[in-house]
Amino acid sequence: MRSDIVTILTDFGGRDPYVGIMKGVILGLHPQARLVDLAHQVDPQDVRQGAFLLATAVDWFPPGTVHLAVVDPGVGSRRRALAVQGERHFYVGPDNGVLSLALRRDRMVAAVELQPGAWTLERVSRTFHGRDIFAPTAAHLARGVALENLGPPASNLVELDLPTNQVEGNRAITRVVHRDAFGNLVTLLHRSEVRGELLGVRMAGVEIPIRSTYAEAATGDLLACWGSADFLEIAANCGSAAERLGFDPETPIEVSLADIDPWEQAG
Amino acid sequence: MRSDIVTILTDFGGRDPYVGIMKGVILGLHPQARLVDLAHQVDPQDVRQGAFLLATAVDWFPPGTVHLAVVDPGVGSRRRALAVQGERHFYVGPDNGVLSLALRRDRMVAAVELQPGAWTLERVSRTFHGRDIFAPTAAHLARGVALENLGPPASNLVELDLPTNQVEGNRAITRVVHRDAFGNLVTLLHRSEVRGELLGVRMAGVEIPIRSTYAEAATGDLLACWGSADFLEIAANCGSAAERLGFDPETPIEVSLADIDPWEQAG
Amino acid sequence: MRSDIVTILTDFGGRDPYVGIMKGVILGLHPQARLVDLAHQVDPQDVRQGAFLLATAVDWFPPGTVHLAVVDPGVGSRRRALAVQGERHFYVGPDNGVLSLALRRDRMVAAVELQPGAWTLERVSRTFHGRDIFAPTAAHLARGVALENLGPPASNLVELDLPTNQVEGNRAITRVVHRDAFGNLVTLLHRSEVRGELLGVRMAGVEIPIRSTYAEAATGDLLACWGSADFLEIAANCGSAAERLGFDPETPIEVSLADIDPWEQAG
Repeated sequence: MRSDIVTILTDFGGRDPYVGIMKGVILGLHPQARLVDLAHQVDPQDVRQGAFLLATAVDWFPPGTVHLAVVDPGVGSRRRALAVQGERHFYVGPDNGVLSLALRRDRMVAAVELQPGAWTLERVSRTFHGRDIFAPTAAHLARGVALENLGPPASNLVELDLPTNQVEGNRAITRVVHRDAFGNLVTLLHRSEVRGELLGVRMAGVEIPIRSTYAEAATGDLLACWGSADFLEIAANCGSAAERLGFDPETPIEVSLADIDPWEQAG
Repeated sequence: MRSDIVTILTDFGGRDPYVGIMKGVILGLHPQARLVDLAHQVDPQDVRQGAFLLATAVDWFPPGTVHLAVVDPGVGSRRRALAVQGERHFYVGPDNGVLSLALRRDRMVAAVELQPGAWTLERVSRTFHGRDIFAPTAAHLARGVALENLGPPASNLVELDLPTNQVEGNRAITRVVHRDAFGNLVTLLHRSEVRGELLGVRMAGVEIPIRSTYAEAATGDLLACWGSADFLEIAANCGSAAERLGFDPETPIEVSLADIDPWEQAG
Repeated sequence: MRSDIVTILTDFGGRDPYVGIMKGVILGLHPQARLVDLAHQVDPQDVRQGAFLLATAVDWFPPGTVHLAVVDPGVGSRRRALAVQGERHFYVGPDNGVLSLALRRDRMVAAVELQPGAWTLERVSRTFHGRDIFAPTAAHLARGVALENLGPPASNLVELDLPTNQVEGNRAITRVVHRDAFGNLVTLLHRSEVRGELLGVRMAGVEIPIRSTYAEAATGDLLACWGSADFLEIAANCGSAAERLGFDPETPIEVSLADIDPWEQAG
């Protein structure tokens, strides 16, 4: 289950060579690594956004991929550093919830706590664990080192304090978790959590028509649809839903669904 | 004619993991693929800009490279999905003109229409054909699958509605097609379309002096020159021509050229 | 001493395919090259910033890495084009100081002046030496061509006009050289230039408390610490020091250090 692929997600932005430095460390330890940038424009220190973006991406990588996620406001404090083995992938990052949403989609098999030593850089700074701890760990996992060698077992990983979707029969209430580059508002409601077709979506007093794709709406019109990662999304065709409706993670979004055919339910 | 190189051009911006997801799909199908980002900050859904940027880049890649271009406002509608073989490269993207300028530089040999099936992901969404159709197709072409296997032949590909340059003797009229990151205004006029040295360029009532390189102008001064991709460019040395002159694709740009030596013409 | 790694640092921004084009040229000449982006958002033509970012990154790459740096306001003028061999790495770029800070950290062994010819692209433009001269040179160095083959020896490389840190006993005066994506102000003072613990830092009349890590400061509070690249840094925990203090490369920053134990000095 080795793919040599290491994905990297950070909030380091595009101005600095921090991501490049992490890649230098990884390639120094594992020259065959294949490095894939997932996202580096996560809003600074927004663990929740980083966790969501990571969760939407992991399904699309081959088994054995190592996902390295560094959104780490607590770097240098006592927060733990983790490596986690899921049923399909590996995960490396701080124990602040940034890995937790991906681990709802890829069941955890084992986790270890990383500590300065043979598997990290020799000198571990207090400001850049991405380079000194997480990058070397990802390189070692990608080249086939067994997880249990990397540290003592870790349990009770930190979970994100995320609002739960309320799903009852043909109604659901969810919230926006992410605003993408097009201004689409992506919610926490995953298609697998509900049954029945979407009938209506209402947010901030606005009724939003259901479409199966952006192009079905007139230019500029709002629409709701299952997005590309199967989360409910509110968009404006060729425009920005976020500009029209705002981006407030607290605003409840009411979803109504078609009654489910009892015969289908029975099946 | 295999290079294992897949270039990727999109309007997905830098915030989201969409490009990374496409890379995960490609590497899952063709682990030896070498992935090169061309540009992801194409203005959202600006097919014309994407087409121009792609056309300036393709010449510089080895034969057999696969160019994947996803600027796709019509995703989920009836617009066709294409794979095209040129004399030197392969092209994958929607049939909306985004490939058409590159195909003016690399003559088309064959084109096929892509359809959900064995060469795409098993489940094809209506919002993200970049991942579900185009990325798998690019991976299969890069690993050597023959174009004709990927779908039925396609003809009458969509062309861009671009103004034509008017070239008559030692005069030409062209227009701006792109504003680059330095604020340079890049026009549609390619060096190969005219003969004779540049004598003068006039835009919006301003005479712009000809220079062979930026550094020949005084700091801040406007200049016109053949840009790095051999398109006529209006720049300001250490400044932004776009700020000085605006960026209006409709404004005609008048170009005068040195009379051509009749002996040279005869030769 | 070959690593096949080529790092790339430019001021080309994210909108244009210029970096992708350079990668196409490199992969055409050396298909096994492993390409790593260091930074492409260097402020346009800010040689000093590019030089600093490069210097912070090189230490973290394996021996034999080729570092390609194109921040080149003088492209097309008479400034020389260089390839340099250090004790550990190779460097390729214009002779304007952009390589000079990295060469303070990796002692120069030899340098050559690049000229149009067998090792460059056949046609060398006057506006894009990154593609026509520097990328091919980097590819040839990465595939093992000896430096002395690439051109005649070059000496008296251009140095940056950077303020010198004044270090006297337990006091030092330095200046800001870079503002990173978090708004941290990074100074020119490297940890190896002083002895003794940091006691106090004062900038623009503000006393800035010393912390060993961001998380030790209260949210929003200013702090000074040794940054991840071992340069003195002024930060605001979960905030922007640059917004609070401004970013003025001329403002002197006064640093006081603990008296050094004479026994330690003797040892």
